[in-house]
Amino acid sequence: MSETTGPRTERVDFRATSDPALLDSADRGEAHLLGYGELYSLWERQHWAVQDLDFTQDKLDWHERFDEEERFARMYGLSAFFIGEQRVAAELGPLMRAAPQEDMRLFLCTQIADEARHVAFFDRFYSEVDVLGVEGLEEKLAATSEHLNPEFGVLFDEMLKSRVDRLATEPEDLETLVEAITIYHMVIEGMLALTGQHFIIDYNEREGTLPGFVEGFINVARDEHRHVAFGARFLRDMARSDPRHVAAIQRTLGEIAPVAEGVLKPKWAPDDDDFEIFGISVTETRAFAFRALERRMKVIGLVAAA
Amino acid sequence: MSETTGPRTERVDFRATSDPALLDSADRGEAHLLGYGELYSLWERQHWAVQDLDFTQDKLDWHERFDEEERFARMYGLSAFFIGEQRVAAELGPLMRAAPQEDMRLFLCTQIADEARHVAFFDRFYSEVDVLGVEGLEEKLAATSEHLNPEFGVLFDEMLKSRVDRLATEPEDLETLVEAITIYHMVIEGMLALTGQHFIIDYNEREGTLPGFVEGFINVARDEHRHVAFGARFLRDMARSDPRHVAAIQRTLGEIAPVAEGVLKPKWAPDDDDFEIFGISVTETRAFAFRALERRMKVIGLVAAA
Repeated sequence: MSETTGPRTERVDFRATSDPALLDSADRGEAHLLGYGELYSLWERQHWAVQDLDFTQDKLDWHERFDEEERFARMYGLSAFFIGEQRVAAELGPLMRAAPQEDMRLFLCTQIADEARHVAFFDRFYSEVDVLGVEGLEEKLAATSEHLNPEFGVLFDEMLKSRVDRLATEPEDLETLVEAITIYHMVIEGMLALTGQHFIIDYNEREGTLPGFVEGFINVARDEHRHVAFGARFLRDMARSDPRHVAAIQRTLGEIAPVAEGVLKPKWAPDDDDFEIFGISVTETRAFAFRALERRMKVIGLVAAA
Repeated sequence: MSETTGPRTERVDFRATSDPALLDSADRGEAHLLGYGELYSLWERQHWAVQDLDFTQDKLDWHERFDEEERFARMYGLSAFFIGEQRVAAELGPLMRAAPQEDMRLFLCTQIADEARHVAFFDRFYSEVDVLGVEGLEEKLAATSEHLNPEFGVLFDEMLKSRVDRLATEPEDLETLVEAITIYHMVIEGMLALTGQHFIIDYNEREGTLPGFVEGFINVARDEHRHVAFGARFLRDMARSDPRHVAAIQRTLGEIAPVAEGVLKPKWAPDDDDFEIFGISVTETRAFAFRALERRMKVIGLVAAA
């Protein structure tokens, strides 16, 4: 499938993360995954600053080049990212505290800062481009959350949150941590966020629109690849150490797959898999997401529950 | 007092944090404290990388220039920092999740990454200079924790941890958050860490020793000033919003002051306030710490419980 080996996914900085979805060898279950300390050091080198982005052209594009319908579709597409980033930053605290090794914990500390940076990125983009016509981070989050579909709520507020709440009180429960990392790193970041990012960046690059947004969103995607690489490493280590963890990963993927599919589809879209958004059908989106999951699962040592 | 207005504390990047301890005007209770979003942006600009430091000269100094006694005293002085950084990274998760505003939470996310970076800094310094003769982060933490005095355990494992555990299960308990930020940002970081850092950096600069360590430790201190500036802003906002929060800050400082004094004194030191370590008496250390607390409390709107 060309999307996973297209020009952007061949970027040196993306591949430096060792996310198996970016490697052809992962189809054979082969990948050199970075260690936790190496992933920490990569975070230091892949620093970026929201304040360096320039949204001048983005504002012109948004208000003068896009019509009402396009603005709505774009705003819809971004809302899940904005809200998603905000939810995960808070949820990562208990995961970090529950990590069984110090070097795992250090990496998760850097991921918490990344999620905050992603919220700051959307906050600044929404402000400077004036996407919603409201001021203030809290007001923007409230306004944009109206565009989420019900599966988003199930995924974050039920499936992820129940695990995180348990880890907050029982940090030594390693099996729940395995489930939480499967949901967070493999599904939310690996299947959903990176798939959406891929097609949104592609579309804007083809159209030559929102250059400041594209620059920032590529940085966001690079961060996500690094997080997913951590998840793949962690789950591979856990799967090798205890067969019960293999069962936990498979069980969680089975539970979450139908919900994840729902999140990939806008709530205003007709019930038709050929329906296209920005030139991409729901079928194509789903294929991209499951292809990435499959590569990662092969490297972890499992067969994907596709 | 010259220490708080000495050459290093006049550094532009230190003063950019708005930590009241660095400002003469704070003696009159006046300081322009940065907002939460500004503190986040400052974090983006004040990025640094542990991997950029060069410890070649440090290793020569440690093994060829220092004798056995000096190595012990230095190792002792650093152990509380190494262990302290590791403890606080995990404890910050529940504080971050309990923050009542989104912009506060974003800043605390960046602080979590800073604490991880500080652990990585000590880990690399201890490895490359070969301070302990043991490999592995967990092994180093175990070996160095033997040098802690009992008050350190009371402060971290009882006073701070009891608040953090409560916030992990009751994140809406704002009064406990005020107490936790008082202990963490005002006492542990503001009084203890920054005081130790000040004298350790001073001594090495005077002696011309450990240049790689000094470069990194100045970066650590700059991060701490930014964290303390956040704490001062948060506590000022809380104190202005509810007089019960003023009482909570005062009560917590009263409870913690005797323990904090104990932490400033090595467990092997004689019971004599004129006893000097690296040319500085316990009395001088204590005066520096309380002076900094007093300035911050004046800006928050309280009189320091000195």
